[in-house]
Amino acid sequence: MVQLTELVEIVGAEHVLTGAATESYVTDWRERFVGEALAVVRPASTQDVVRIVHWCRNHGVALVPQGGNTGLCGGATPDPNRRSIVLSLVRMNVIRSIDTDNDTMVVEAGCILQNLQDAAREAGRLFPLSMGAEGSCTIGGNLATNAGGTQVLRYGNARELCLGLEVVCADGQVWNGLRGLRKDNTGYDLRNLFIGSEGTLGIITAATIKLYPQPVAQCTAMLALPSLQHAVTLLSLARQGFGASLTGFEVIARNCLEGVVQCFPEQRLPFMGEGAEQPWYALLELSDSESETHARERFEAVLGEALEQELAIDAVIAESGTQSYALWHLRESIPLAEKKFGKSIKHDISIPVSLIPDFVSNTNKLLQDKFPGVEHVTFGHLGDGNLHYNVAKGTAFTEDELLAQQNEIYRVVHDSVHHYHGSISAEHGIGQLKRDWLVDYKDPVELALMHRIKQALDPEHLLNPGKVLNI
Amino acid sequence: MVQLTELVEIVGAEHVLTGAATESYVTDWRERFVGEALAVVRPASTQDVVRIVHWCRNHGVALVPQGGNTGLCGGATPDPNRRSIVLSLVRMNVIRSIDTDNDTMVVEAGCILQNLQDAAREAGRLFPLSMGAEGSCTIGGNLATNAGGTQVLRYGNARELCLGLEVVCADGQVWNGLRGLRKDNTGYDLRNLFIGSEGTLGIITAATIKLYPQPVAQCTAMLALPSLQHAVTLLSLARQGFGASLTGFEVIARNCLEGVVQCFPEQRLPFMGEGAEQPWYALLELSDSESETHARERFEAVLGEALEQELAIDAVIAESGTQSYALWHLRESIPLAEKKFGKSIKHDISIPVSLIPDFVSNTNKLLQDKFPGVEHVTFGHLGDGNLHYNVAKGTAFTEDELLAQQNEIYRVVHDSVHHYHGSISAEHGIGQLKRDWLVDYKDPVELALMHRIKQALDPEHLLNPGKVLNI
Repeated sequence: MVQLTELVEIVGAEHVLTGAATESYVTDWRERFVGEALAVVRPASTQDVVRIVHWCRNHGVALVPQGGNTGLCGGATPDPNRRSIVLSLVRMNVIRSIDTDNDTMVVEAGCILQNLQDAAREAGRLFPLSMGAEGSCTIGGNLATNAGGTQVLRYGNARELCLGLEVVCADGQVWNGLRGLRKDNTGYDLRNLFIGSEGTLGIITAATIKLYPQPVAQCTAMLALPSLQHAVTLLSLARQGFGASLTGFEVIARNCLEGVVQCFPEQRLPFMGEGAEQPWYALLELSDSESETHARERFEAVLGEALEQELAIDAVIAESGTQSYALWHLRESIPLAEKKFGKSIKHDISIPVSLIPDFVSNTNKLLQDKFPGVEHVTFGHLGDGNLHYNVAKGTAFTEDELLAQQNEIYRVVHDSVHHYHGSISAEHGIGQLKRDWLVDYKDPVELALMHRIKQALDPEHLLNPGKVLNI
Repeated sequence: MVQLTELVEIVGAEHVLTGAATESYVTDWRERFVGEALAVVRPASTQDVVRIVHWCRNHGVALVPQGGNTGLCGGATPDPNRRSIVLSLVRMNVIRSIDTDNDTMVVEAGCILQNLQDAAREAGRLFPLSMGAEGSCTIGGNLATNAGGTQVLRYGNARELCLGLEVVCADGQVWNGLRGLRKDNTGYDLRNLFIGSEGTLGIITAATIKLYPQPVAQCTAMLALPSLQHAVTLLSLARQGFGASLTGFEVIARNCLEGVVQCFPEQRLPFMGEGAEQPWYALLELSDSESETHARERFEAVLGEALEQELAIDAVIAESGTQSYALWHLRESIPLAEKKFGKSIKHDISIPVSLIPDFVSNTNKLLQDKFPGVEHVTFGHLGDGNLHYNVAKGTAFTEDELLAQQNEIYRVVHDSVHHYHGSISAEHGIGQLKRDWLVDYKDPVELALMHRIKQALDPEHLLNPGKVLNI
């Protein structure tokens, strides 16, 4: 029996949770994983974390770092079969500094993403990382999982938005790499190694993040498209015509929009006639450094060309913030339209953009051959090659019948992703959920390199064991 | 005595160079380092590289990868005290594929940068990596050193322009990581680990690089500024006003321009009166996705505001491509104006942008205290926080007297850089030149992590020994 007294000495009794008090920390967001922990420990400082790491080393207890516990792959949920503690970083939520001339902010790992967006805005800047969970996810978790979101096309993933880290290593040493430099070629890129490693190589306790100018105006348009290939060509045209002003490019299959309209009758498709009958829709967002008027003029010029080239059948440009919101609301309501589709089997995948039309038609066919009648609920960030390629029961299956086929459906989709040189996890990470799939699809040389690095940085497997790699 | 017969069998006799034929390969670009090699070996394929690595392992011979041999820190020059071969990748110069829908190009390591820029242009795209050596440097070397250049402000360093790598590891295994995905969260970021590791962790044999739309127009402006602090504030204003259209922001001290005009009388400062008397100048470049007219209008609007806010004393906007060229030519002639300054002691440093004015005035003062009368030749990429902070003899020293103080001057400048949380190598890397300085300025925890990673990936120290780390 391990004594927790020393942990209490480090963080105080109210921050060493045990028993029932650990419940929400040992269960993942989607409630697919339930683990066990000797305790949940909530440090207030980097120095606390150091002391906790030493305690874990001394007692042979593993350590599962956790931020807002909003991860989608069980990466922050302890394994019930190991002696571990959950290290919850939520108390480390201080914005250490904001430097508007350097366009950087130094923040602690437990800062909630939305608070960082707000702080940036108050300083007249933009922190562009943005996603559904932003009200509760933390920047430490965002970096540990290299989170994506809706503005990756323009600003990149979490990785690209970070200039430096502070990390507590497995041996309890602290790497202070918080320098906010845009150019620094003095050795190996440790920052990017820790980012996306899901807490298995070190514990991110703080980060220097990049700020951008606030755009002066944003404007949204929706287009009705005769095929997914038209969407790919439209993306090229839009990138050429808008340059870096293009901050969003989503595609949506028509049945997704129909599902939304059925479930939420107050929403409606913004097209009539032929425009309402197309199989695919694209949602484009411009961020403009001049004015709303200029953004709309640009949309009119470039989308006019798209219509002329018959890349799109019809297009609507939002005339106001309200209209922009309504268009985005259609997109964001898709995951909620379960009344229509039922629980679906979800795939967060990426494919080279040029191969997406082929991938979708061939994978649809493979699934229809094997599971005739399933419904394809396909939408995603085309600009990043990232699809939410979901499979719903359709009229042919009950929900239970579909779920019984879950692994087989995963297999068909992942095999196809692999065939098209894609990734089985575009933005959600590996965690526990996809760990064993990884072994099937990752280049064995790459997997061996990952093992070597894990061994080099955490030889005792103290940090988040069983996540990403099966050790 | 090692037999080279097996190497001849791998690549053919004409690609195993020995004796005098190795001379240009074992001497670095700036002729500061001269090494020795058993042979220069020039593989034609990844498979050749694999066989050469096995040969090296079997014979206990180290391997120094080399591209265009244009590096500035001796990173591709063999150590005379070790048995090594130079692995010249120049024959691996095939563009394997171009995918304009995915905006990627798969290229071999030996491709010359300019050829990639040209190939991208012919495909209607931009490959934005650009630097002085582009006519002879190779993409493999650019990635191994994470090269910077003139468009980093908008497009990032070489690191940010690469989506995937093919790498031959120290054990001869090939990691194929060429998938051109913009999102892929399936494990540790090996790509970024190899990029910037200067050939000490693996041999980059091919890469998937990112393409961008060609801008429709580019426009240049120069501003005369009362202080460096004004330049920092102007940068903020320019980032806000131009967004991602701002592709260049350089600062230049007046004496640099005076030097150019003295050496090259056909060039002239584009200001008269008060504008010609300011201590600092800024050179801004816009890349526009609309038109030349639009770019100039944007310049007029935002620079008008800068003049109104008295951030600048005067501004000129190029009215034509010729005028743009003339402004850039002033900037690019600075390193050539040695007639005026003599050989200078060069520092390629970065500092958080907000600290640059303080850094420059304090470091100037430290140097004047110690070496009264030296001349400061300061210019650089302010937008990236990257200064070429050079020290010339001025009127107080002869060139030889100055060079005799070289190490002491390095020390003063690097100490100051360190004090301001900067980097002693912003874009040139470490190689041999700065290897021992690194030990003085790098966080020991970081240095220890680098050693562990080197040990994990190249336990026999086969790859480019003595570069970056002293092993």
